[in-house]
Amino acid sequence: MTYCVAMSLDEGMLFASDSRTNAGVDQVSTFCKMTVLELPGERVIVLLNAGNLATTQATINAIKTSDEAHSVLRASSMFQVAERVGETLKSVIRRTADGGVQQSDVDFSASFLVGGQIKGEAPRLFLVYAQGNFIEATAETPFLQIGESKYGKPILDRVIKPQTPLSEAVKCALVSFDSTIKSNLSVGLPIDLVLVRHNALRINLRQRIGSEDTYFHDIRDFWGKGLKRVFNELPEPAWLHQQG
Amino acid sequence: MTYCVAMSLDEGMLFASDSRTNAGVDQVSTFCKMTVLELPGERVIVLLNAGNLATTQATINAIKTSDEAHSVLRASSMFQVAERVGETLKSVIRRTADGGVQQSDVDFSASFLVGGQIKGEAPRLFLVYAQGNFIEATAETPFLQIGESKYGKPILDRVIKPQTPLSEAVKCALVSFDSTIKSNLSVGLPIDLVLVRHNALRINLRQRIGSEDTYFHDIRDFWGKGLKRVFNELPEPAWLHQQG
Repeated sequence: MTYCVAMSLDEGMLFASDSRTNAGVDQVSTFCKMTVLELPGERVIVLLNAGNLATTQATINAIKTSDEAHSVLRASSMFQVAERVGETLKSVIRRTADGGVQQSDVDFSASFLVGGQIKGEAPRLFLVYAQGNFIEATAETPFLQIGESKYGKPILDRVIKPQTPLSEAVKCALVSFDSTIKSNLSVGLPIDLVLVRHNALRINLRQRIGSEDTYFHDIRDFWGKGLKRVFNELPEPAWLHQQG
Repeated sequence: MTYCVAMSLDEGMLFASDSRTNAGVDQVSTFCKMTVLELPGERVIVLLNAGNLATTQATINAIKTSDEAHSVLRASSMFQVAERVGETLKSVIRRTADGGVQQSDVDFSASFLVGGQIKGEAPRLFLVYAQGNFIEATAETPFLQIGESKYGKPILDRVIKPQTPLSEAVKCALVSFDSTIKSNLSVGLPIDLVLVRHNALRINLRQRIGSEDTYFHDIRDFWGKGLKRVFNELPEPAWLHQQG
């Protein structure tokens, strides 16, 4: 599996993805699930992918090599970028499934988080489904996740609002990854993290966070110990010693 | 959906279940998912159920009304109790699915957490699957979950060990439920919680925790604020201001 999260906040956007893929437990590899398409000063687009690796690689290849008329680097809006990613993804899946080779239980589906900003437009963030359709993040729902999203959702639900500064958002994303990685073997380091500030129209920060990253190590350590401390300070239930 | 967790610890066992069931979002009801079978001083058995409500109710009814020879109250070991629950569950599902009425997309499956102690035996805890087979909790894996288990798993992974006192386990279970309820609409209050101390051979505490429960309210409040405090104390990444 995979875990990816993207946030669209007042200060800018955050994108983060793990890099573990597995086809069964004996075929575990590292693949970057983040694609950056950038014309600095004009547009910046980030894609995060989850799902069948052959599908996502074929989709990204088609997006990168498409003719000018269909290029996401020529799309007139982020909405059109999401449409083109959706159309490409859907056609890749259809082509694979209709390939004539009988493969009953292989799941070719995949999904993408697609976000960024095109000059003249506000930043926009979409979740593109295998069917090619998509939803957009809003002020009420400023973050979107794909892959193994449940373990890391509670901390995002508590912290992330449109007003959350990017520095907080980075911390929250890493805590969310820490919880997911701790509880699910199919999500693993390194984490690719990108920040795109509002109206920067380029990548402001790109960081690859591996197992030797001291900051991530500190976050895990502080967070683990802090949770334990808060936990130990929780009141005991009065009813605990009422009976037996 | 549902969320249930059970723990087998040195000091005793903890069982907790939510009580929301839903068949679609417009058919939401409250049902207790905990069944206690007790011969105080001789045996105590607790069942928690997740999955299709008709299946779990039929299974529990069959278990409660079975003849003496097959009664879990006459089983010679907790292993045999788990076997009987598994056989009953499997036969209920098979009977329903083979009923002759064509219902293509209804999922009749269900699962149970089955734990307790029979005099002369150590306490044992099992997870019984729809196929009738089961796994047992061990010192390395002292807790088992069914239903919407992912949101609430990280805190259990961090805290629960066989040495964890029951008072800590209660706090941890409630924090785990809080995270799940906050992130997933299909899990809801009240929570049914039962404690069975080692060798007590009866229920030591049974508590129903609803939305007006002051202790649960305190836990939610303390935990939410504590998390925020720890979060705010996390160091900022040194690399955050290196670029752009």
